[in-house]
Amino acid sequence: MDAILRPVIAATVEAITPLDSDTIAAARTRQEQLTKPAGSLGRLESLAIQIAGITGQVQPVLANKAIVVMAGDHGVTAEGVSAYPAEVTPQMVLNFLRGGAAINALAGVVGARVVVVDIGVASALEHSGLLSHKVASGTANMAQGPTMTRDQAEEAIAVGIGVVDSLAQEGVQIVATGEMGIGNTTAASAITAILTSSRPAEVTGRGTGIDDAQLAHKIAVIERALAVNAPNRDDGLDVLAKVGGLEIAGLVGVILGGAAHHMPVVLDGFIAGSAALVAEKLCPHVRDYLIAGHISVERGHRVLLEALGLHPLLDLDLRLGEGTGAALAMGIIDGALAAHGQMATFAEAGVSERDESEE
Amino acid sequence: MDAILRPVIAATVEAITPLDSDTIAAARTRQEQLTKPAGSLGRLESLAIQIAGITGQVQPVLANKAIVVMAGDHGVTAEGVSAYPAEVTPQMVLNFLRGGAAINALAGVVGARVVVVDIGVASALEHSGLLSHKVASGTANMAQGPTMTRDQAEEAIAVGIGVVDSLAQEGVQIVATGEMGIGNTTAASAITAILTSSRPAEVTGRGTGIDDAQLAHKIAVIERALAVNAPNRDDGLDVLAKVGGLEIAGLVGVILGGAAHHMPVVLDGFIAGSAALVAEKLCPHVRDYLIAGHISVERGHRVLLEALGLHPLLDLDLRLGEGTGAALAMGIIDGALAAHGQMATFAEAGVSERDESEE
Repeated sequence: MDAILRPVIAATVEAITPLDSDTIAAARTRQEQLTKPAGSLGRLESLAIQIAGITGQVQPVLANKAIVVMAGDHGVTAEGVSAYPAEVTPQMVLNFLRGGAAINALAGVVGARVVVVDIGVASALEHSGLLSHKVASGTANMAQGPTMTRDQAEEAIAVGIGVVDSLAQEGVQIVATGEMGIGNTTAASAITAILTSSRPAEVTGRGTGIDDAQLAHKIAVIERALAVNAPNRDDGLDVLAKVGGLEIAGLVGVILGGAAHHMPVVLDGFIAGSAALVAEKLCPHVRDYLIAGHISVERGHRVLLEALGLHPLLDLDLRLGEGTGAALAMGIIDGALAAHGQMATFAEAGVSERDESEE
Repeated sequence: MDAILRPVIAATVEAITPLDSDTIAAARTRQEQLTKPAGSLGRLESLAIQIAGITGQVQPVLANKAIVVMAGDHGVTAEGVSAYPAEVTPQMVLNFLRGGAAINALAGVVGARVVVVDIGVASALEHSGLLSHKVASGTANMAQGPTMTRDQAEEAIAVGIGVVDSLAQEGVQIVATGEMGIGNTTAASAITAILTSSRPAEVTGRGTGIDDAQLAHKIAVIERALAVNAPNRDDGLDVLAKVGGLEIAGLVGVILGGAAHHMPVVLDGFIAGSAALVAEKLCPHVRDYLIAGHISVERGHRVLLEALGLHPLLDLDLRLGEGTGAALAMGIIDGALAAHGQMATFAEAGVSERDESEE
């Protein structure tokens, strides 16, 4: 699709190039020389080679990590789609800022900083650690009309791009997506239904923990939202604006911005995946920069990862969001790069290679 | 089975108690109070609760980690069962000691020390960092008779117990299994076939990378070894002595010793799993102390994990051994314990709980 995007978004999309094939070839050659049977480190090998291609470095070192947690509220919570009240969004944002949430603990383990952005929380929030870029005080109710204007969607994407620009200037080398927003699995399911051509029932799950009757209701709300808004599946921005969320739009910006800065972008769960679907509509090349941190128990997540051609690193029955699965995956990425960068070659270590005479 | 074990093994088995149910209950209660939907951290929650039960601490901290890499040679390599020559065993041991192997890189990421033990390498090895506890210079060829005597098997188990005793005295709180031994997937397959009542073809894979014809040959060698030795499936020690390996016996000791010291024991791949099968025959309680780090591509690994009732943490297509999958899993365990120990409760953070009025 050829919708006209505001200049900062268009320039970012323009900056996202295919991966560096020379660096990929050099990294692959290095993997073959390391003291292990070829291929025996499985996903760690392909990860290291992908990251070499992303960064343009044969032996990348990504010491400076950030997890960007975008927070926003959802008008659709008025329909009773979540197990938790909307007031939990600002409460959890403050919990992130005070270091009491799961994402703080997991980020600490992998040495990542947590960057919390108010891009659309309904209530006023102030904290010295909070990045305040509120595009609106929550979205409108998708069951009644568009969640936001196209201009707001673009503004929120630009916020995400701007946050990553700043992080890149500060030396961040790898970025992960996090989010908080009561009601946001409803938005993610609506986006996923449209962009993967699925029925809402195929891509809608229990979020933070609703029962069977509530799940049926949530699916009905999404079906109504799609009927009311008729999003255009060929126009990612239209889908995002009509049934998305401000934090999802912000993550679209984080994804595009990360790729434009040649950073690996580690996706968390279902919400992040829905943002990736939109980003990929705006710029198909972005896919090569993505690492699916994990597969969540939300059923739509598997559908969208398949559509994106991404294979998740972890499968730990997580369904929290916040960036928790991505933070854990950063530890696996550290391992992949440490093995790739630090192992001795057969020649360096004086280790015999395969006994080809037996074959 | 009631075989008489030498005193150090019998005493170790005796010291392995069921997990502490009061601590488990307290840890579960804590999980329910943390600022997240109940169950939303999936495997991280069950891991933290299990480790609380193992250690007897409601909020365990396991800062001091060790990966014990047992190295031994296998007489069965004379049958041409491996893609690599046996000389690679000592070469890789030196690579471990010089810090050039995958396990060194991955251990570094999670802050674990690598403890390398020569328990049965065929050639003489000297290095200041090596623990020399050679029980024999490699095993005998299982295709012709027992790989070792019952006394040697017990001695090797005692070595593993002794290594963990020393580590415990030095403050180590969590131990992972690692190994090196060209030919050891053949031994692991033979053990697994007997102790899971499987046909060798169902539990034999390509090891470091053999082709179809070599795989068929490897299976035939294992079938011959089982026919020649007729191991008694009710006697784990008999199975270990007849078709096992010295490093596998050493790992049986590491597993028993770790459990006796109330440490979580993180299993690496197929070789470690075969040791766990033997350990579980000697002491069924040991199962509760085990964490399956990953599932490898060796087909027998899945069979034995199911037999042990263990669900692997990671699935990254690894087939290297050394302890690499266990080292990566230690990072996930760090995450589980950090979330469990550091997160705020709903009350502490002032976060609203589930909106039960909607249900």
